[in-house]
Amino acid sequence: MNKRDIKIAYIGGGSKQWARVFMFDLALCCDLTGEIGLYDIDLPAAERNRKIGNRINEAPETVSKWNYIVYDSLETCLTGADFVVISILPGTFDDMRVDVHYPEKYGIYQSVGDTAGPGGVFRAIRTVPLYEEFADAISRVCPDAWVINFTNPMSICTKTLYDVFPEIKAFGCCHEVFHTQDFLCDVLKEFTGISAKRNELYTEVSGINHFTWISGAKYKNIEIFDYLPEFISRHFDEGHYEHGPADSYKTDTFAYANRVKMDMYRRYGVLGAAGDRHLAEFMNNRWYLDNPEQVEFWKFALTTVDFRVRQMNERIEESVHMADRSVNIEVKKSDEEAVELMRGVLGLTQKISNVNLPNKGQVPWLPNGSIVESNALFSNDRVVPLMTKPLPAAVQSLVRRCSDNIDILYEGIKKRDKNIVFEAFVNQPLCSSLTLFEARQLFDEMCDKLCSGFFVK
Amino acid sequence: MNKRDIKIAYIGGGSKQWARVFMFDLALCCDLTGEIGLYDIDLPAAERNRKIGNRINEAPETVSKWNYIVYDSLETCLTGADFVVISILPGTFDDMRVDVHYPEKYGIYQSVGDTAGPGGVFRAIRTVPLYEEFADAISRVCPDAWVINFTNPMSICTKTLYDVFPEIKAFGCCHEVFHTQDFLCDVLKEFTGISAKRNELYTEVSGINHFTWISGAKYKNIEIFDYLPEFISRHFDEGHYEHGPADSYKTDTFAYANRVKMDMYRRYGVLGAAGDRHLAEFMNNRWYLDNPEQVEFWKFALTTVDFRVRQMNERIEESVHMADRSVNIEVKKSDEEAVELMRGVLGLTQKISNVNLPNKGQVPWLPNGSIVESNALFSNDRVVPLMTKPLPAAVQSLVRRCSDNIDILYEGIKKRDKNIVFEAFVNQPLCSSLTLFEARQLFDEMCDKLCSGFFVK
Amino acid sequence: MNKRDIKIAYIGGGSKQWARVFMFDLALCCDLTGEIGLYDIDLPAAERNRKIGNRINEAPETVSKWNYIVYDSLETCLTGADFVVISILPGTFDDMRVDVHYPEKYGIYQSVGDTAGPGGVFRAIRTVPLYEEFADAISRVCPDAWVINFTNPMSICTKTLYDVFPEIKAFGCCHEVFHTQDFLCDVLKEFTGISAKRNELYTEVSGINHFTWISGAKYKNIEIFDYLPEFISRHFDEGHYEHGPADSYKTDTFAYANRVKMDMYRRYGVLGAAGDRHLAEFMNNRWYLDNPEQVEFWKFALTTVDFRVRQMNERIEESVHMADRSVNIEVKKSDEEAVELMRGVLGLTQKISNVNLPNKGQVPWLPNGSIVESNALFSNDRVVPLMTKPLPAAVQSLVRRCSDNIDILYEGIKKRDKNIVFEAFVNQPLCSSLTLFEARQLFDEMCDKLCSGFFVK
Amino acid sequence: MNKRDIKIAYIGGGSKQWARVFMFDLALCCDLTGEIGLYDIDLPAAERNRKIGNRINEAPETVSKWNYIVYDSLETCLTGADFVVISILPGTFDDMRVDVHYPEKYGIYQSVGDTAGPGGVFRAIRTVPLYEEFADAISRVCPDAWVINFTNPMSICTKTLYDVFPEIKAFGCCHEVFHTQDFLCDVLKEFTGISAKRNELYTEVSGINHFTWISGAKYKNIEIFDYLPEFISRHFDEGHYEHGPADSYKTDTFAYANRVKMDMYRRYGVLGAAGDRHLAEFMNNRWYLDNPEQVEFWKFALTTVDFRVRQMNERIEESVHMADRSVNIEVKKSDEEAVELMRGVLGLTQKISNVNLPNKGQVPWLPNGSIVESNALFSNDRVVPLMTKPLPAAVQSLVRRCSDNIDILYEGIKKRDKNIVFEAFVNQPLCSSLTLFEARQLFDEMCDKLCSGFFVK
Repeated sequence: MNKRDIKIAYIGGGSKQWARVFMFDLALCCDLTGEIGLYDIDLPAAERNRKIGNRINEAPETVSKWNYIVYDSLETCLTGADFVVISILPGTFDDMRVDVHYPEKYGIYQSVGDTAGPGGVFRAIRTVPLYEEFADAISRVCPDAWVINFTNPMSICTKTLYDVFPEIKAFGCCHEVFHTQDFLCDVLKEFTGISAKRNELYTEVSGINHFTWISGAKYKNIEIFDYLPEFISRHFDEGHYEHGPADSYKTDTFAYANRVKMDMYRRYGVLGAAGDRHLAEFMNNRWYLDNPEQVEFWKFALTTVDFRVRQMNERIEESVHMADRSVNIEVKKSDEEAVELMRGVLGLTQKISNVNLPNKGQVPWLPNGSIVESNALFSNDRVVPLMTKPLPAAVQSLVRRCSDNIDILYEGIKKRDKNIVFEAFVNQPLCSSLTLFEARQLFDEMCDKLCSGFFVK
Repeated sequence: MNKRDIKIAYIGGGSKQWARVFMFDLALCCDLTGEIGLYDIDLPAAERNRKIGNRINEAPETVSKWNYIVYDSLETCLTGADFVVISILPGTFDDMRVDVHYPEKYGIYQSVGDTAGPGGVFRAIRTVPLYEEFADAISRVCPDAWVINFTNPMSICTKTLYDVFPEIKAFGCCHEVFHTQDFLCDVLKEFTGISAKRNELYTEVSGINHFTWISGAKYKNIEIFDYLPEFISRHFDEGHYEHGPADSYKTDTFAYANRVKMDMYRRYGVLGAAGDRHLAEFMNNRWYLDNPEQVEFWKFALTTVDFRVRQMNERIEESVHMADRSVNIEVKKSDEEAVELMRGVLGLTQKISNVNLPNKGQVPWLPNGSIVESNALFSNDRVVPLMTKPLPAAVQSLVRRCSDNIDILYEGIKKRDKNIVFEAFVNQPLCSSLTLFEARQLFDEMCDKLCSGFFVK
Repeated sequence: MNKRDIKIAYIGGGSKQWARVFMFDLALCCDLTGEIGLYDIDLPAAERNRKIGNRINEAPETVSKWNYIVYDSLETCLTGADFVVISILPGTFDDMRVDVHYPEKYGIYQSVGDTAGPGGVFRAIRTVPLYEEFADAISRVCPDAWVINFTNPMSICTKTLYDVFPEIKAFGCCHEVFHTQDFLCDVLKEFTGISAKRNELYTEVSGINHFTWISGAKYKNIEIFDYLPEFISRHFDEGHYEHGPADSYKTDTFAYANRVKMDMYRRYGVLGAAGDRHLAEFMNNRWYLDNPEQVEFWKFALTTVDFRVRQMNERIEESVHMADRSVNIEVKKSDEEAVELMRGVLGLTQKISNVNLPNKGQVPWLPNGSIVESNALFSNDRVVPLMTKPLPAAVQSLVRRCSDNIDILYEGIKKRDKNIVFEAFVNQPLCSSLTLFEARQLFDEMCDKLCSGFFVK
Repeated sequence: MNKRDIKIAYIGGGSKQWARVFMFDLALCCDLTGEIGLYDIDLPAAERNRKIGNRINEAPETVSKWNYIVYDSLETCLTGADFVVISILPGTFDDMRVDVHYPEKYGIYQSVGDTAGPGGVFRAIRTVPLYEEFADAISRVCPDAWVINFTNPMSICTKTLYDVFPEIKAFGCCHEVFHTQDFLCDVLKEFTGISAKRNELYTEVSGINHFTWISGAKYKNIEIFDYLPEFISRHFDEGHYEHGPADSYKTDTFAYANRVKMDMYRRYGVLGAAGDRHLAEFMNNRWYLDNPEQVEFWKFALTTVDFRVRQMNERIEESVHMADRSVNIEVKKSDEEAVELMRGVLGLTQKISNVNLPNKGQVPWLPNGSIVESNALFSNDRVVPLMTKPLPAAVQSLVRRCSDNIDILYEGIKKRDKNIVFEAFVNQPLCSSLTLFEARQLFDEMCDKLCSGFFVK
């Protein structure tokens, strides 16, 4: 078979496990080959990825070999790219420690801290300027390339790309919805005995990244939502986790028991389509994140930066071993969809998946231009959003507020206007328990530590 | 001069000072006369108003005598009406005590408690069914009458009228915007020496009732907003009250020093156009209403129900004296506009004023059908909204949330669906400091005390 | 393999070749089986189809046998249906003769006369009442069935179904877009040598039925539109027909040389996506249908009713022979997609195709609720429209007018209001050359002949 | 009384009677005074106006004297202006002869030829570039001035001003609606005996300039539309003219008998709100303008350019006599509203009148940004549109098409793109009787004669 020869510019990803997953999936893809250009401000990390890539090329399972090249400039890496994959860690762990833990002084607990809440706001402040540069470089060097974003905060990264370069062919990918689809497969299985894969469902997806919702899920003509009330009756107390025991969250900081999701379903009749850790951050902080005890009650975990540092060090160590051939590499297909989406836009398949794009009407109750997450068709150099079903009014109101916050935040960052950014900050549902004085104080302190000198007004 | 002979059906108003003001203005209106039908479930109150009306007829200042008739049924009062004026007190002071003070057990303080927050929600629950009856009766008895609503919660009352009888010619009147216009006249005066009347300004008004905003104010070609930053610099600490000394709020529970309004202007660049007592209730409760000390800091007052009871008793006593001729009555023109608006729709004048109406596009960033407050032209059997200017994105987000809450609340009340009403309750900015459990408990307790048996699902 | 057992209620189709094509495709579908209920007011025609169906069951190529049952009432046919397929011929050939040829007295030539123009209007008048009955029966008998409409006028039939029964799961299928996709495959082939199938393209489809447009066509990352200017330079004079020689229209009344389409592309930069015979009827009649000579110049043909009668007789004769076993039946797969779409909604495949549905925002420049044609995903009990790209302003204006005409026409027919219907009639682009007096006279004469007594106002 | 001292820059108007009317109204305005700067490419004409102005200053009726100054450059005239009044005659009478009469070769008759139809298109082509210059100069020299446009084609002139300088404070004034209001006063008088002035009505106005509609007209609570059916029954045959006998059109080329308007009312239930001469040009040319006999049947007149030349010469002669003091000048108040509107924006009065502005939602069924005509409030440095009532669907469709044509035409002229302009040309309802070939030929011939070299693509 004739393979398509492409160049993928991979920006960042040096220290991410996800890079490896992606390289595996590419190695197992029978109809693609070519170059994977690696660019990372952490050059040794890019170098490690190159070495791992070369080892993957040697693996017996590998069906496609790729030419891994490390670049020392963004522009050279982008040159000739058919795809640009961006997966960066904006800032340092010290920055992240401020994002996540500093607000705890004010009673604000964050389970992730990279999308919404005080942490999300400040991470956006240091990410948007990087994306302004990426968009500008892409517009000059490879305007026809498809750009796939994996970095959080997803929505504002995607918004930056389109605002700086409106003709960009970019989309944002996130696997959180997949987990909720897995959850729904568990429901289906419990009531019908049918073991479906999530790809076999059609789920009505709409909302914004990490505060996405599923309002219906059909397996053939079976509406899985019909089983949800009874499923929740049975499992609410104990909880249910789609990838392990309900109490996995006690040892796995990324796990959760879906009690937040089930509580929201009981109140709104639709299903939050992200991990509970993410969902909780888009609502009043006293609802699900009031304090560590409440978090324990809802059966999920606060991801600490200490944990992230440890995890990162383990991953680097693992990478080092892979690179220096001291461990074996087993190349296997993941549940991620990035390669399938790439095959889709290359015209090698038709694929439906959820994706983050500027709203052009696919979510009629959110403003045009806001970044929304919905299903889309990936096909022949096109990513075409599917129309979404309306959510209940009370849910629209919750989502609208968070979407507004992103747009206000973006406006403030773009203009380097501290006042506007503060309005987005203080309107965060996670800041609900703060007085104006506390909010202002926390905001100023975080500014001092994280972005002193950034604002011009 | 030939006077227009009309019938006004006045529903409620029995114990309200406002009724008297209205009767005065009508007595001083040179081109209207006719009948004022009085209907009140408190029959003695209506009877008192009839007697006061007759005394007004005898006053030397009076230019128009009116025929005051007390009716014992809504239908007979409405029969033949050209205008229906609705100004009721829904429920008892005991109910109001629950509305306003019960949430204090949970740390929720309310400065008014009749529009937003827990109090506003429960007042709506007992008001909407009454308005369903009013709208139904009007549709049958006097479908062509102009209906003027003065009752709070204004937005949901107006919404009920239009939802039950879509062809109704109704609008909602509120004088809160007038006070902010007076405030702007003070600003103009301080900087230019010009003593303008509020009617001489054109103010860009938009938003929802009691959370209305002014985004520009022109006196001739002078933009008063140009003086606001300096005015606020000078007066923020002490405060400024348009109808008396800045510390009037210490003795007059309805007064305020506009420090909330000035703080909001500093943050958003536009001016909340209602008394601080109202504005504060549409935002996070920890911002301006966290506790009595904070309220004192912002220099306004919590209206207690004890105060309202005392005030009502004084007013009743005053009415009794007026009715039994033991005090003099001095008939004088008020600053209210109701009679002018009536003259407007009768074709006797053209009048521009702010008014509450279903959105047909006059506030493009709020949904069609939501009740919005904007300027309108009153002229020849028409009330025609004027297009509004957009507000800053951060303000739109605040207002949108509260407007959504009203629409969700209305849907819940209409369907007698407790779950939906709870979603509007828990999304109230004044409930920001509540956990879900506290919110549910408070809600259930208030339901038990106020509307047990109301909900069917 | 386990086949899905379904019931298809087939309404009409008795005398249509298309019924046979559909039966063939079902016979060759490996994962469906069950009952095909036949209901036709022409009972012998239904009976013939039953017999032909039974012969197909015996054919060696057949992989799925179906149980063909003739019903003598709509309700019994619908009972238990999973799918309702509607393909009727509304009225008689005598009616059609009036539709198509009567306007020729006034200089109005119609190439089809079943969708737009005077013929389309009157065909709608006699079709909508039938669809009101269908929708009502479906809502009572089989509300969960998928309803597939093939009858013209497509848009107004689909509109009727949704207006009468808003929860209906209906869509309208038309193969005209397919032909334009075939045309684009020819373009691709000429310039690249690649022989693609139309299903391998992604075409940006939007508009209304028979006045649909393609604004981009990608084969992998090749934009076929890049070749169109040169293709049209080469072929405009002679013409090009995707299914035969350019002059096929001389002998095949359904053929055309795409000169209309190419002329429109030159003027608007996008491609009309239906046969020239249909496209021409949506524009000023003096443009492409002024007189037979002009039609000859543009190289398409006027379909006469004599031809249709002849064709029908031949088809009936053929059917008779098939039914009485005097000819052989060769069962072969067609290029139609109906069975694939059915498999899509049954969850047996995912299929993208163009389809007619109420606008919910997929065509943002047409009103919500108007019937629009766009791509949609057929999957797991869902038909989900894909967002469309905007067309050039001048094309939007042409389409908008025709879409408005359909909505006005529907309102007029629904209210049995002759005045409103006349406004839709006189606004037809095909009536451009009529004076008001001529238009009124023609309209009245056609009313007399076709729908005397129908209107109540 | 203290008069406001202002500068009015009057662009053009040199040869227009209207300039005199405006000078009269200013001379009789008791609270305005200052400078009237005159700029005209026809310098002697400006000079004549200066002399006439000075004579007006001497007239006994005059209450405000103005300082008339002739400028020889646009920039100097604009310097310091509070108001810019633009009233130009774009091109020569020879150009206009082509606009109006050339299309007659193709059977296209135009009653005015300055707004829609072939004449309107070509007049736009030569006017827009002038307005691009005006807008640019205003943005540089007097960005805060109020700009009042009187030039036709009104919509596209106003569109140009806002497109080039989005912050411009411009509006377009047209008195056509006034005449229809006078017509409605005649209806009121005939049925009730009441002699109302048009300012005493509230008319629901919406649409686009010269194709404006009135959908309701209240005098106090009397709906004048209730009398229209009977009025039209009585007067349709003979016609009715609001400013003279029904057959005035036979001698006064600007008169008409309102038979077009009455015919449209019968068909649509709403009233075209412009002279029949204008209305007819926005519809299919075979409806009301098929040929001179048909025009006679509908009882209006084709304005010839010969007539315009004669009229202009008479006016110039009259001006010369006024200027050289050989005739008397009687200063009297007109029915025009320009001075009242100026007083409105100066804060000296509140005035409601119809006006042309970019749509911001006041006409919800037309696109935002299109120039629409609706009522507006003129008050304190503001022109605020009033929300309009929707028109019947069939009327919306007619207006939408003409509004689209203007927007397409503007896009074409802005881009100097002949193809786009042709699409707006051929979609003119007045071109309905043309084949594509005729349309192209006529268009090319008019281009050759009028704007050769203008287009760049």
